[in-house]
Amino acid sequence: MAAPYERIALIGLGLIAGSMSLALRRAGYEGEITGHARSAETREIAREIGLVDRVCDSAAEAARDADLVVLCVPVGAMGSVAREIAAVLKPGATVSDVGSVKAAVFEAVAPHLPENVHFVPAHPMAGTEHSGPRSGFAELFDNRWCLIVPTEGTEAQAVERVAAFWRMLGANTEVMEVEHHDLLCAIVSHIPHLIAYTMVGVADDFRRVSEQEVIKFSAAGFRDFTRIAASDPTMWRDVFLNNKEATLEILGRFTEELFALQRAIRTGDGEQLFDYFSHTRSIRRGIIEAGQDTDAPDFGRVKPK
Amino acid sequence: MAAPYERIALIGLGLIAGSMSLALRRAGYEGEITGHARSAETREIAREIGLVDRVCDSAAEAARDADLVVLCVPVGAMGSVAREIAAVLKPGATVSDVGSVKAAVFEAVAPHLPENVHFVPAHPMAGTEHSGPRSGFAELFDNRWCLIVPTEGTEAQAVERVAAFWRMLGANTEVMEVEHHDLLCAIVSHIPHLIAYTMVGVADDFRRVSEQEVIKFSAAGFRDFTRIAASDPTMWRDVFLNNKEATLEILGRFTEELFALQRAIRTGDGEQLFDYFSHTRSIRRGIIEAGQDTDAPDFGRVKPK
Repeated sequence: MAAPYERIALIGLGLIAGSMSLALRRAGYEGEITGHARSAETREIAREIGLVDRVCDSAAEAARDADLVVLCVPVGAMGSVAREIAAVLKPGATVSDVGSVKAAVFEAVAPHLPENVHFVPAHPMAGTEHSGPRSGFAELFDNRWCLIVPTEGTEAQAVERVAAFWRMLGANTEVMEVEHHDLLCAIVSHIPHLIAYTMVGVADDFRRVSEQEVIKFSAAGFRDFTRIAASDPTMWRDVFLNNKEATLEILGRFTEELFALQRAIRTGDGEQLFDYFSHTRSIRRGIIEAGQDTDAPDFGRVKPK
Repeated sequence: MAAPYERIALIGLGLIAGSMSLALRRAGYEGEITGHARSAETREIAREIGLVDRVCDSAAEAARDADLVVLCVPVGAMGSVAREIAAVLKPGATVSDVGSVKAAVFEAVAPHLPENVHFVPAHPMAGTEHSGPRSGFAELFDNRWCLIVPTEGTEAQAVERVAAFWRMLGANTEVMEVEHHDLLCAIVSHIPHLIAYTMVGVADDFRRVSEQEVIKFSAAGFRDFTRIAASDPTMWRDVFLNNKEATLEILGRFTEELFALQRAIRTGDGEQLFDYFSHTRSIRRGIIEAGQDTDAPDFGRVKPK
């Protein structure tokens, strides 16, 4: 496949950057992939397993001469990385990122970048509960969405090149405005994660049943929650600190709705519960039809041995 | 495998009963399996696909001469089924059920049963978001827990036979007291389901993003929620109506905890968020070590095509 960029730098070498490098190679990418991680241990592992072509000891060294620089660090670290690499950026290069929130990233990164580079934020909606340089795999982005979130005035060609890059990694792409992105992601991702974290914490805290018991008998419902709640703590802390307005708004709606169901339980209003549960079931059907999940009767999941 | 019962009746022919019948056959069970469903359509489908050996037009007909009668109907229907079959039960027979709550089932069923039968409630902790006579599969209970919840005074031999029956279907078994069962299940299953239902409802209700968009971009977090929220509405209505005390107690703790995280977001307390998320991640590790889920990096899930 024709490479949209001759040299690519990945700053941060965790799950997302690792998967990007592996997916680039799977696609037959022949340019150079450089990489940098702040932690010496991570750099060492990345060198050992050959995660990228060249692991650099500074972000600036990795970004120098790159045609595409992708910031793959937690949202809270984006600004300082942008400041580190700003001086060495090649004129005409593109800077992108993989952060889960976009307004905050734009505010943190854009002021540091010179005028002769393109800034095209992106958000691949894919992940697992694992993190670190050994956690990546080439298939992570296959058939997942990568949202491209440019700001006004960005050259259309630069935007299209970033989209083509993500399609090369296996993703579907869609261009979206920044505020809309942050609200949508609060609904479909950020608040579900927060709730999962909360529920797992509550279960753990309940002293009349032992933690061992909770773990032992974790049924489908709870198991799915712990899966979500095992995601990278730094990444998620930064998501909530940086998408405050949208998450607080959705949380307000959530507790309102939850209280209504709680009252239905307390008063024994079976009809309300049944209607609510029937409605949510029909939403699920829509998701299966949209091809975003499998309909396999065992949840499509490998059985534990 | 030696059959613990010569004739088995399954009342209700949905996901659980269907999977039980298929698992019995897989185990080489040679006795007769009778079945009954209230809906004529369900009985017709069950006959057509040969789900059990003999589909009966009444619960009493199915239960007559059975050594084991398993009530596989929603919790709210258990009492009336028990009343229907009480007169025909064979002396020395065992009556069991598969309900997700146990105190309410005991109260509804026990008063109808004659003294010369054993009543051994059970709860297989397995399910999918599918329901109906076509949804069963023989592997549903493999390596899942089935909790056996006898009441005081039940003969130990009758309890052990029910446990052996479930092990024959592939499940692990544990004997537990009824109040403890209902609290534990509120934590690991009932409240997670309620929260998933709520979140899916909130997402759907949010008019600034379209339902189509929510479905299209449902990321891992939200997708897992919809999966849970697609479970059978009647079953879950009955669970909440019949495990009111425990679910309301856990809900109270949940909202308390959620409000603390909400305040941390509002005040920008990153340390609190990080600590909370790190703690829940360690709980997840415990669940993987306990063998209740897979550690595969792609969530162990078949990728959508």
